[in-house]
Amino acid sequence: MTKVAMLGAGFIGDFYTFSLHGQRSRDRVQVIYSRDEERGKAFARKHGIPRWTTSMKDAINDPEVEVVVIGLPNNLHLEAVLMAAEAKKAVFCTKPLGCNAGEAKQMLDAVEKAGVTHGYMEDLVYTPKTLKAVQSVRSGAVGDVIWARSRETHPGPHSDWFWTKEISGGGVLLDMGCHCIEIARNYIGKDIRPVEVICWADTLVKPIDAEDNALGWVRYENGAIGQFEVSWSFRGGMDLRDEVMGTEGTIWVNNFLRTGFEMFTAGGKGGYVAEKAETEKGWIFPVGDEVVELGYTDMFTDMFKAYETKTEARETFYDGYIVNEIMDACYRSSKSKKWEPVKLEVWRGRDKTDPINAIRDYDTDHFLVKEETMPDGRVKLILKHKKTGKITQTEVKK
Amino acid sequence: MTKVAMLGAGFIGDFYTFSLHGQRSRDRVQVIYSRDEERGKAFARKHGIPRWTTSMKDAINDPEVEVVVIGLPNNLHLEAVLMAAEAKKAVFCTKPLGCNAGEAKQMLDAVEKAGVTHGYMEDLVYTPKTLKAVQSVRSGAVGDVIWARSRETHPGPHSDWFWTKEISGGGVLLDMGCHCIEIARNYIGKDIRPVEVICWADTLVKPIDAEDNALGWVRYENGAIGQFEVSWSFRGGMDLRDEVMGTEGTIWVNNFLRTGFEMFTAGGKGGYVAEKAETEKGWIFPVGDEVVELGYTDMFTDMFKAYETKTEARETFYDGYIVNEIMDACYRSSKSKKWEPVKLEVWRGRDKTDPINAIRDYDTDHFLVKEETMPDGRVKLILKHKKTGKITQTEVKK
Amino acid sequence: MTKVAMLGAGFIGDFYTFSLHGQRSRDRVQVIYSRDEERGKAFARKHGIPRWTTSMKDAINDPEVEVVVIGLPNNLHLEAVLMAAEAKKAVFCTKPLGCNAGEAKQMLDAVEKAGVTHGYMEDLVYTPKTLKAVQSVRSGAVGDVIWARSRETHPGPHSDWFWTKEISGGGVLLDMGCHCIEIARNYIGKDIRPVEVICWADTLVKPIDAEDNALGWVRYENGAIGQFEVSWSFRGGMDLRDEVMGTEGTIWVNNFLRTGFEMFTAGGKGGYVAEKAETEKGWIFPVGDEVVELGYTDMFTDMFKAYETKTEARETFYDGYIVNEIMDACYRSSKSKKWEPVKLEVWRGRDKTDPINAIRDYDTDHFLVKEETMPDGRVKLILKHKKTGKITQTEVKK
Amino acid sequence: MTKVAMLGAGFIGDFYTFSLHGQRSRDRVQVIYSRDEERGKAFARKHGIPRWTTSMKDAINDPEVEVVVIGLPNNLHLEAVLMAAEAKKAVFCTKPLGCNAGEAKQMLDAVEKAGVTHGYMEDLVYTPKTLKAVQSVRSGAVGDVIWARSRETHPGPHSDWFWTKEISGGGVLLDMGCHCIEIARNYIGKDIRPVEVICWADTLVKPIDAEDNALGWVRYENGAIGQFEVSWSFRGGMDLRDEVMGTEGTIWVNNFLRTGFEMFTAGGKGGYVAEKAETEKGWIFPVGDEVVELGYTDMFTDMFKAYETKTEARETFYDGYIVNEIMDACYRSSKSKKWEPVKLEVWRGRDKTDPINAIRDYDTDHFLVKEETMPDGRVKLILKHKKTGKITQTEVKK
Repeated sequence: MTKVAMLGAGFIGDFYTFSLHGQRSRDRVQVIYSRDEERGKAFARKHGIPRWTTSMKDAINDPEVEVVVIGLPNNLHLEAVLMAAEAKKAVFCTKPLGCNAGEAKQMLDAVEKAGVTHGYMEDLVYTPKTLKAVQSVRSGAVGDVIWARSRETHPGPHSDWFWTKEISGGGVLLDMGCHCIEIARNYIGKDIRPVEVICWADTLVKPIDAEDNALGWVRYENGAIGQFEVSWSFRGGMDLRDEVMGTEGTIWVNNFLRTGFEMFTAGGKGGYVAEKAETEKGWIFPVGDEVVELGYTDMFTDMFKAYETKTEARETFYDGYIVNEIMDACYRSSKSKKWEPVKLEVWRGRDKTDPINAIRDYDTDHFLVKEETMPDGRVKLILKHKKTGKITQTEVKK
Repeated sequence: MTKVAMLGAGFIGDFYTFSLHGQRSRDRVQVIYSRDEERGKAFARKHGIPRWTTSMKDAINDPEVEVVVIGLPNNLHLEAVLMAAEAKKAVFCTKPLGCNAGEAKQMLDAVEKAGVTHGYMEDLVYTPKTLKAVQSVRSGAVGDVIWARSRETHPGPHSDWFWTKEISGGGVLLDMGCHCIEIARNYIGKDIRPVEVICWADTLVKPIDAEDNALGWVRYENGAIGQFEVSWSFRGGMDLRDEVMGTEGTIWVNNFLRTGFEMFTAGGKGGYVAEKAETEKGWIFPVGDEVVELGYTDMFTDMFKAYETKTEARETFYDGYIVNEIMDACYRSSKSKKWEPVKLEVWRGRDKTDPINAIRDYDTDHFLVKEETMPDGRVKLILKHKKTGKITQTEVKK
Repeated sequence: MTKVAMLGAGFIGDFYTFSLHGQRSRDRVQVIYSRDEERGKAFARKHGIPRWTTSMKDAINDPEVEVVVIGLPNNLHLEAVLMAAEAKKAVFCTKPLGCNAGEAKQMLDAVEKAGVTHGYMEDLVYTPKTLKAVQSVRSGAVGDVIWARSRETHPGPHSDWFWTKEISGGGVLLDMGCHCIEIARNYIGKDIRPVEVICWADTLVKPIDAEDNALGWVRYENGAIGQFEVSWSFRGGMDLRDEVMGTEGTIWVNNFLRTGFEMFTAGGKGGYVAEKAETEKGWIFPVGDEVVELGYTDMFTDMFKAYETKTEARETFYDGYIVNEIMDACYRSSKSKKWEPVKLEVWRGRDKTDPINAIRDYDTDHFLVKEETMPDGRVKLILKHKKTGKITQTEVKK
Repeated sequence: MTKVAMLGAGFIGDFYTFSLHGQRSRDRVQVIYSRDEERGKAFARKHGIPRWTTSMKDAINDPEVEVVVIGLPNNLHLEAVLMAAEAKKAVFCTKPLGCNAGEAKQMLDAVEKAGVTHGYMEDLVYTPKTLKAVQSVRSGAVGDVIWARSRETHPGPHSDWFWTKEISGGGVLLDMGCHCIEIARNYIGKDIRPVEVICWADTLVKPIDAEDNALGWVRYENGAIGQFEVSWSFRGGMDLRDEVMGTEGTIWVNNFLRTGFEMFTAGGKGGYVAEKAETEKGWIFPVGDEVVELGYTDMFTDMFKAYETKTEARETFYDGYIVNEIMDACYRSSKSKKWEPVKLEVWRGRDKTDPINAIRDYDTDHFLVKEETMPDGRVKLILKHKKTGKITQTEVKK
């Protein structure tokens, strides 16, 4: 049994604890830290947690605790991580790692210096579909990835602090862009350097200072594009979709809103449908097991296993740092209105990646541009002469 | 930690063991029984199981073993259950419980007499979507269920014994009808008596003695119909879909073939896609985590929890017995070509259930037959006069 | 330009006229017949029709009229058809053809004796998807069809007469079973004799005398099953789905409720969504062009072309008669609770059809039962020895 | 009957002619122009066209011809339009209107000076789903549109000239970006000025000079973003999808690859599946009626009706010109790597559009930021104080 200090008794702390205590798990939350004593006590009661405290330090230094799980507002991540590193405890921190790359870099340095296991809790990289899809990509199922779109949109977060820039550090780009950027990076290849970004961010719908909508492209060294789309003003539930275009294939993943589970209810007695579902009547689209489908189960499995076996988690603070740097570049780009370079103080991937090249020979003289079956059954070939460059078409029977 | 004897080193034993050892589980398979020593040894190696044996008795009586999990061909369930009951071990048996209701009744009697925890491993009742959908039905989201369709079709089972009637006890009706019948029973209400059945079964495609296709309706005492559709000659993968029609709503569940995960691969380097997927190129439809999506994870959670807390599992041998009786009636009906009564030696549900009644008053004189919004925005009402019985239509503005 | 007499100014008359006057059509409704003068006048105004009348006879005998289109309640079809046949006009009649097979036979005899073009307006056989799917079946894309399911369910019809058995002649089985039976017959093969039926019909939800839910299987001479499912108590819109299982393939058609068009509207200002849509807020599922998607456009194209070229329409009164006979057998079966033979006074298809046979040789000694790729990449074969009948499994590498 | 000169006997000429002669149409192609006599003759035979010619001028000046339909390579549009305008014939030109805005402007000037009816044949704006979706947007169903994504990707065009920049004038951006840009413009509002663009374009997969992949955002004066995604290297068929995010709702349209029609075929005898389908075996996804679903039918209906009634078509050369100007800005941006202004010589929409504003009062002191139902049924409100700007959360029961 691995004992855990949970920092934060909010929405995400709930999800984390449901997941840690779920199924036949051998891990347990030992102590819950909340600034608000009543809230901590209620949380402990709900989840059967032995202790609660209003002191972050006491929670982390609880002698039985081996792992610290951080589910706090963004502006408290740095403090909590530094404290856990000092206590030499394994530390898993929710996303985004820092409010900016500077904070993230401090956290990375701290845990590496302390030599403790660290995990960047980018849960959406761990959804069962994403794990299997990324594995398929690595095994060559879609060839080279040339474009990966990740989209997370919903009607806005559930706690006031997200909407307050001094606490959150930013708007929807920081809150959810981090998910999409890291998902695309997993598809394209985590060892391929992100080179530059263009980003649009605007406050279109909500009465807030930070951006409520953002779009961006991250260009990788091999020419691939990671595209993110995030919004706090989407209507209809929580839309978590990824699309991957490879030279040899395509992947479409829908994690939440169309997963083969559809319900119509005239009376609306269905109760809670799903996170940010918006409607309780009419057609609704639940998921089976939210904690599994959102990746929490597989994320904790990976991170606790890394802790037990002294290996690296799939997502570490290093990854969290890279994502923060990309987001910093996005914020610069949204102001400069041009492509901005991604500045990496640390890079542990490939030094140099060649451009994607999928050009195929048709015969010694020609490249194959395209092959297509026509309505009448003929196969049409488009060829390019290697020397003259002339493009011609021809038809063959198959 | 709960220690398990796994009986059977085949396809389903693999799935069960992956599930038991999956995620952060605290349960472990301690010994594997296989008639074939090499196979048992290989299975033990693959799953990190300490012991293997070719003696069913030794496996069951292993002093460390608390729970016996039966993943054997149908004709061996009875023997294995009787042995486990004698050894006073908890016993979880794969579906169908018996080759017929007589066998199932013997098993039920044996475990109840021995006072051991028993679980009927009807995994498809435990898929995350089914669990949540059944919960929604119970909470009133769709009103009274009047019809539940459950469909399981694929291109046929993976081991020779399924196709040999002496070992399997029957064809696709026995192999997969049991799933669909119990799923529909969960939606309609497990305490409502199944009264009679009509069944069609035929051998249309495969060179076998048993039926390779079957359809059936089970009529429940309140008038609801449970419809099953099973086939060993479906093309395109494994189709696991349920549909529920209630007086106030509708549920559509797709467990396997359209779950929001779609992949196109030109090269076919994707490797294993999913159970019975049929294709490795072109458009393929994997699931995220097969062990979760097919219900194994939640099934074992429920059954081990029942064992630990000395409560009843959601699906017990009693349920397995009911399903066997329904299937026996189906086999009779497929020969007699008429509705056949379901004969239950044991019934623990409601003595009497009234017919479904969803008739709504419109006003003191009329019942509401229907309300509909027309293309031009008018609302049309169809009313029936309570005394004269006359049906009229009228239009109102909303 | 072909000039039309439209009989009936109700919901279906509207759809027919929108379709006849739609796109770049060269056909025109010349006269509208309605029992109610005000209604006829309003209809004429809405659709730009030159004349209206309350005399069915005048409408049919209008000298400019070449084609009579019948969109009347079921109990008026016979009278209208006899009148049109007497006037030697081409006549297209809505579904079901008769209230029973006796009426249908009289209509068939009348039009054939008169030598006029006749069309059975089974629109759902003409949806663009159904036309293409049936064409694919005929070209061999799915092998032999062994099962075809057709489902039409919605919250009930829009006019009072449907709910009144004296006018409609029956409940949901007669109203919509006719669609599903003929769709399945198109997939299985219109020249294969329907042999027997089993049918369940019940009044579960609505305060009416006729059945509001019905299910049935029609067994064809080659062993194939046509399955229909109809309901007037479905919640969530109009569900028009077909599924076909062939020895070599599968077809799934969704004509109306999931067609790649999804809308969420918080305000509900969307207006008319689609026929029987039930909701105007939340997630709604319109179709693109209702008149096209429901088959009206292609149906009239086929029938007017048949009239112009003096050929047979795809669906004639003969087909309508066959469907009525099948439904009569269904009503008998729902009472007798057993399979009932389909009695055909006229049969113009094959005299005899052999059973479906898809058994494949593996080698000279064995039949192939099944071939499957396993998770580890091996290919497992299930074989049956031709002489001994023994079933064995073996593994090969590919 | 309206008589047509068809210019171009290629793939698109086929589609246009099938559409013009389809269903019960009263329009006919009278003469076909093709540079290649054999090809023109074969085309005439296939479609039952009375005359063919190798002289564009003769085709246009055919005295019976009232309407000229241009289905020629991009570099011939200008010449053909000028000739038709001179002949005072109505002229409908395929997309893109010009190879650049300069050409488009010349064409616009020519037809307006000649006073002839002109149509910009942007068929994808006319798909039945798009027409209905745009109508829903105009009626307020989704509030103000803040983002519209239009995606068209497939494995590349079918004729050699598309791949040859001298003839096509550009790559995938020019070929298909025009579709997506105009679709988004229809959703956002054709009277709202497109202000600036950012575009990425690259040659990643194909051995060609022009771009084979491009992405872009068009920013409109009210703050809305039109996003386009085009590719000639997509695998899996032709992907035509649109997504619209409004302040009050959402629209998802799938025009081609997931439309409720799914087929699995083991044998591959299905023949032609759909334009650019890529596979003939395994799971395939046809559409019902390709000519309807791709918008040709409704497009010609609109344009011929405009001609007959002397009104404006939904899409005119003015729209084609606007699209060309946006694409010119995109090409500039893809080189400058920054947002580029859209330069419009002609603008006939609103002079000035205010920013989207969806901020809602909660009470006199607060704006409503968000309202959400939590898993336990509470409703959480996020409010912003109008004066202090402080954001707080509160819970209410409903």
